[in-house]
Amino acid sequence: MRFISILFLVATSLFAQSQQKLSGFFPSNVQKQLEYEKQFDAIISSSNQDAWMKFLTSRPHHVGSVQGKANADFMADLFKQWGYETELATYEVLFPTPKSRLLELLGDKKFKAKLEEPALKEDQTSGQKSEQLPTYNAYSADGDVTAELVFVNRGIPADYEELEKMGVSVKGKIVIAKYGGSWRGIKPKVAAEHGAIGCIIYSDPKDDGYVEGDVYPQGPFRPQQGVQRGSVMDMPVYPGDPTTPGYGSTKDAKRLDIKDITTIMKIPVLPISYEDALPLLTALGGPVVPDAWKGGLPITYHVGPSLSKVHLALQFNWDIKTLFNVIAKMKGEKYPDEWVIRGNHHDGWVNGAADPVSGLVSEMEEARAISELAKKGMKPQRTVVFCAWDGEEPALLGSTEWVEDHAVELQKKTVAYLNSDGNSRGFVGFSGSHALEQFFNEVAADVIDPQTGVSVKDRRYAKSISDADRTGRAKMYGNKYMKIGALGAGSDYSPFFQHLGIPSANIGFGGEGSGGEYHSIYDSYDHYTRFKDPGFQYGTALAKTTGRSMMRLANADVLPFDYSILVNTIGDYLTDVRGQLDQMRNDTELENKLVGDKLFDLAKDPKLGFKSPVAKSSVPFLDFSKVDNAMFQLKSTAESLKSALSKADKLGSEKLTILNGILFRAEQQLLFEKGLPRRPWYKHMIYAPGFYTGYGVKTLPGIREGIEERNWNEAQSYADNLASTLLQFNVSLQKAVQVFK
Amino acid sequence: MRFISILFLVATSLFAQSQQKLSGFFPSNVQKQLEYEKQFDAIISSSNQDAWMKFLTSRPHHVGSVQGKANADFMADLFKQWGYETELATYEVLFPTPKSRLLELLGDKKFKAKLEEPALKEDQTSGQKSEQLPTYNAYSADGDVTAELVFVNRGIPADYEELEKMGVSVKGKIVIAKYGGSWRGIKPKVAAEHGAIGCIIYSDPKDDGYVEGDVYPQGPFRPQQGVQRGSVMDMPVYPGDPTTPGYGSTKDAKRLDIKDITTIMKIPVLPISYEDALPLLTALGGPVVPDAWKGGLPITYHVGPSLSKVHLALQFNWDIKTLFNVIAKMKGEKYPDEWVIRGNHHDGWVNGAADPVSGLVSEMEEARAISELAKKGMKPQRTVVFCAWDGEEPALLGSTEWVEDHAVELQKKTVAYLNSDGNSRGFVGFSGSHALEQFFNEVAADVIDPQTGVSVKDRRYAKSISDADRTGRAKMYGNKYMKIGALGAGSDYSPFFQHLGIPSANIGFGGEGSGGEYHSIYDSYDHYTRFKDPGFQYGTALAKTTGRSMMRLANADVLPFDYSILVNTIGDYLTDVRGQLDQMRNDTELENKLVGDKLFDLAKDPKLGFKSPVAKSSVPFLDFSKVDNAMFQLKSTAESLKSALSKADKLGSEKLTILNGILFRAEQQLLFEKGLPRRPWYKHMIYAPGFYTGYGVKTLPGIREGIEERNWNEAQSYADNLASTLLQFNVSLQKAVQVFK
Repeated sequence: MRFISILFLVATSLFAQSQQKLSGFFPSNVQKQLEYEKQFDAIISSSNQDAWMKFLTSRPHHVGSVQGKANADFMADLFKQWGYETELATYEVLFPTPKSRLLELLGDKKFKAKLEEPALKEDQTSGQKSEQLPTYNAYSADGDVTAELVFVNRGIPADYEELEKMGVSVKGKIVIAKYGGSWRGIKPKVAAEHGAIGCIIYSDPKDDGYVEGDVYPQGPFRPQQGVQRGSVMDMPVYPGDPTTPGYGSTKDAKRLDIKDITTIMKIPVLPISYEDALPLLTALGGPVVPDAWKGGLPITYHVGPSLSKVHLALQFNWDIKTLFNVIAKMKGEKYPDEWVIRGNHHDGWVNGAADPVSGLVSEMEEARAISELAKKGMKPQRTVVFCAWDGEEPALLGSTEWVEDHAVELQKKTVAYLNSDGNSRGFVGFSGSHALEQFFNEVAADVIDPQTGVSVKDRRYAKSISDADRTGRAKMYGNKYMKIGALGAGSDYSPFFQHLGIPSANIGFGGEGSGGEYHSIYDSYDHYTRFKDPGFQYGTALAKTTGRSMMRLANADVLPFDYSILVNTIGDYLTDVRGQLDQMRNDTELENKLVGDKLFDLAKDPKLGFKSPVAKSSVPFLDFSKVDNAMFQLKSTAESLKSALSKADKLGSEKLTILNGILFRAEQQLLFEKGLPRRPWYKHMIYAPGFYTGYGVKTLPGIREGIEERNWNEAQSYADNLASTLLQFNVSLQKAVQVFK
Repeated sequence: MRFISILFLVATSLFAQSQQKLSGFFPSNVQKQLEYEKQFDAIISSSNQDAWMKFLTSRPHHVGSVQGKANADFMADLFKQWGYETELATYEVLFPTPKSRLLELLGDKKFKAKLEEPALKEDQTSGQKSEQLPTYNAYSADGDVTAELVFVNRGIPADYEELEKMGVSVKGKIVIAKYGGSWRGIKPKVAAEHGAIGCIIYSDPKDDGYVEGDVYPQGPFRPQQGVQRGSVMDMPVYPGDPTTPGYGSTKDAKRLDIKDITTIMKIPVLPISYEDALPLLTALGGPVVPDAWKGGLPITYHVGPSLSKVHLALQFNWDIKTLFNVIAKMKGEKYPDEWVIRGNHHDGWVNGAADPVSGLVSEMEEARAISELAKKGMKPQRTVVFCAWDGEEPALLGSTEWVEDHAVELQKKTVAYLNSDGNSRGFVGFSGSHALEQFFNEVAADVIDPQTGVSVKDRRYAKSISDADRTGRAKMYGNKYMKIGALGAGSDYSPFFQHLGIPSANIGFGGEGSGGEYHSIYDSYDHYTRFKDPGFQYGTALAKTTGRSMMRLANADVLPFDYSILVNTIGDYLTDVRGQLDQMRNDTELENKLVGDKLFDLAKDPKLGFKSPVAKSSVPFLDFSKVDNAMFQLKSTAESLKSALSKADKLGSEKLTILNGILFRAEQQLLFEKGLPRRPWYKHMIYAPGFYTGYGVKTLPGIREGIEERNWNEAQSYADNLASTLLQFNVSLQKAVQVFK
């Protein structure tokens, strides 16, 4: 055990009386790990992050760009210098870019949209016009459409229910939707489902423009011509290269024809600035929008349709591009076939400082610090893998293709995947596998917040309780335990987590670095270092948090998965989903009474001519008995396991290895092979991105979405599928208990 | 009893089997009254209202204007024609009007405010420039001040707590506040309390401009140069002529010197449009405002102070003007010394169509219909008095001076005072003495809504339940009983109700006639008939509602005061105020813990440099035992009275007269002679306008405001004062019970 140096032995004896517990470490090994972390913290520097960000964001670095490849090479060189086995893992992916874009308002008040973000003298990279991707939505359909315009608020299904009440149809129309309220790809998808023939998405100043604060360059928020680029591929069906669903898009991979791809948007879609949106929104007639739909432009927002027509014409180059993932491995001293993987993407829409480089440079600094320690003889016990993904922005291309390409090996070897994707000043946030919740609580308690000197966990607690209302405060006071969030979609954890069932988490700081630079040319080094994390204070905090998580997972004696927490969390989700069903039943019953009594007819303003709600079919009771039986067994097994694990230090090394293997693969048992309805790629029965939310998670997705869409048969069948996956998961936990017998 | 015609006898026999109960009427008299009302409804016409509004709004008709006097004469002539004993009750009142107004931004971006509402070709009276009062706030101080500007949101005390946290002081500054969130006079009062030297109030487009809907003349909302005039006299201290507090401002009345008047604002105050506000708000530096402070202008709202100074210079003519109340009486057939009074003001800030003429023409139509019936021999049993008040806008001048002048007679004779002050399409609303709640429920059940054909009560129920959330809906469903509101301030009921203890109510329709014309030159016949109540459908509904209330009160056998409802309502207010005290105690305790743990310090963004809350002194328990004892007795008496009243038809006529006298004077026993703290004019112990809200009611005001201002001694002493007034009220109800012995 070269790992234990003289220094450690001294440190251990000095702190032998310390009572600190560390999930996953035998008491005798706790001090060693803490000392390791102390040295790790001491190595972490902000100046590297600054220098690397400056280089990595020096020119636009999207998929297929010169700078993108240069960045991959730059990082690969560094990883190699640090002693990592490094490769560029390349894939060939469909990545459309604009050939032509036209948006104009016809009629009396003719107007042609600029579709252009101006360079600013205060932002040194904003003038790199020839290399910037134009403002567009990737995987929009080609199209040339002319029609009246209708404003659809966020463009989610609930908005179309409101439109229906107002008697406004989008059939044959072009819709204009505000960014926000869902992942952007939901907006054209739902619009097309309702018969729209084109979709415009704009950034309303109420969301990230002048309503929020001073605009760039005076402040961090979106200036009037700033535009949010972004993908609109139907990723809630499957992410990754759309021509190779479910398998790696290697050079020779068999590919779907573009016409056979289901995830390319059916209609043309274009993102615009609020300056370009203003004349379009001003041209709308029809009813005034509901209060909740109002934005921050100085107009009365109307639903439409517009009197004059709008002309939208888009053509794209449908090219196959090569992407470059950087994969850097350091073999584990003791368990080389157990991998702890860390990732952050490296491609940006333009210069991409906050998104993604801010998280990436933290990851790089973690890798550097681990290598420094390794050079001193302190190599991690498990293999650590640092990944810099290409092509995240278009469709999680790099991560998904790599994961699909190596699925079997990854399921066999991966202990956990830790992701970040941008970072800024503020408060720590963790989302992911709940079996790691206690683990992350401990990590957060051991990282010092750079602004206040307390732990990042304590600062987060202070923020939560001070932001809460009186009821929330009373409930929270004195309870610092941090519930972690559930993962939806939006970054590279998706293929690991929702496709392969590998325990995953997304980690980042935020809340004090708000801005309106997202996916625009203004997400730059200048913007980042002025507004988001001056001095990279939180870049170092992220490196300490995620790096510490990596090292604890890499060095743990027994892997720190607490499945009793996951099981209880599943129990909470079940309570929630059943409550939702009961609530819907009660709401439907009461609303139907109101409909029957004509109360909506009587209440409404007859001058508006709106439609009243109609009676809905009543909500049945579903059979949760199989789930209840499975949960009953599972809770008991999880408790037995928890109690058994407290004696793990009595196990021999061989049994320990078997136990760890069962522990890190257990969450894979929560996959259901056929996957979710109409999207078999998503196999995790506990967590998925919502089919109609995109980013937003749906826990127990098969049941929950069945209920929300009033598809009772589907909800029932997924309740049964959940029961069977829970039993499968239970078997796995029972095997872990058996190791102790 | 000439009252009972042959027609009535026939009608009565036809409907003899009807089971309808009518509070206040012996079963044998119900049909007679219902038939009377049926004939009344048949007389009510919309065309008179239209014609009268056209005349009354034909020119500006503020206090002291030519048209104001012409309107009074016009109405007096009509009342006389209709057979009313009619007089013009004149008072001499201080009514300042502008001599000069100047508002400018100094510095680089020099700007001079227009302070002018433009004429519109779509609005035929908007061009009467020579007669229009300029945009101003009456009873502002004269002044010429130059200082930095600070934005104070609504300008209420809570906003200054936020400013304090942000470290921004208004001392020596000019403040700019948004209209809304309080009565306008609160804003300069609180500003002056905090050391400000001037106050600007503007109409934000989010409140009644383009954010709400299309602006005039396209739609009903406030155009960019529209300004809300209005009084800023400190009416929560006392309303009426400020030179004659508490007594009539008759020609020879002794008057205070202007310098000795406490209710004139201490600093200059000016209302402006959002067009004029935009350059001022744009000039503000300092922190970005909290989210709740944001308005609808296309800027980032900052708190200030401004870099450049603002110059505000105002001078007024401090003239005594003559005002003209129209008082029209029709003597009661049976009880000439029992008066049912109806009022609505007739003065407007400019042409005043919605405010006040829309309510006034309903009142006139009620008076006409009653006179028609009287001519047919169906005179009311009690005296009905129709009042058209002058000078309501500046300070409830006409009503207050008349009430103060006739206080003794009014307390002796007045059964109730029913007020309206504007009307529009929508839903019926009642606020006032809770002893009349059941009565108003019955009235509202018998008036047909013109748009839907159901009763106005049913339509209001439909609106309330369809607007409610699920919890509200479940609670409301099937319970159509209408809780009436409590009266604060803002119209001519104040002197009757809060000064004399006369049972009062304010009645009106609204909710479907929103607009931004309030107190501007655009509150015109053209605006009203296009947007607020085309065809005067709701003008007739108001006449039927308020006229019906008048006639039931005038003809009731036993006056329909249900004091058990009032007593229960007081009980609810007590529960509420005690809950508020307990809540404050818990909140203070918890917040102090958070302060002690430095959680606010840890949570805040250190870059903003804001202050954290500091610990507050803890909230004591108060002694409510006297109130509890009084309430215990009162509840028992109220129940006894309720039960006794069911046998009122067995009382002889003399006892009935005694009983009625006790009943209508009982609420006067809820007055406390010394009045409320620092404002003795307000004597009602149950209802008052808030000292820091103005319009908004504070129930149990002595206790509630003591608690809110953390003045525990005052709260305790007013709990005791409440107990003694409740006992005094109890004695009065006991006397009513005694009548039955």
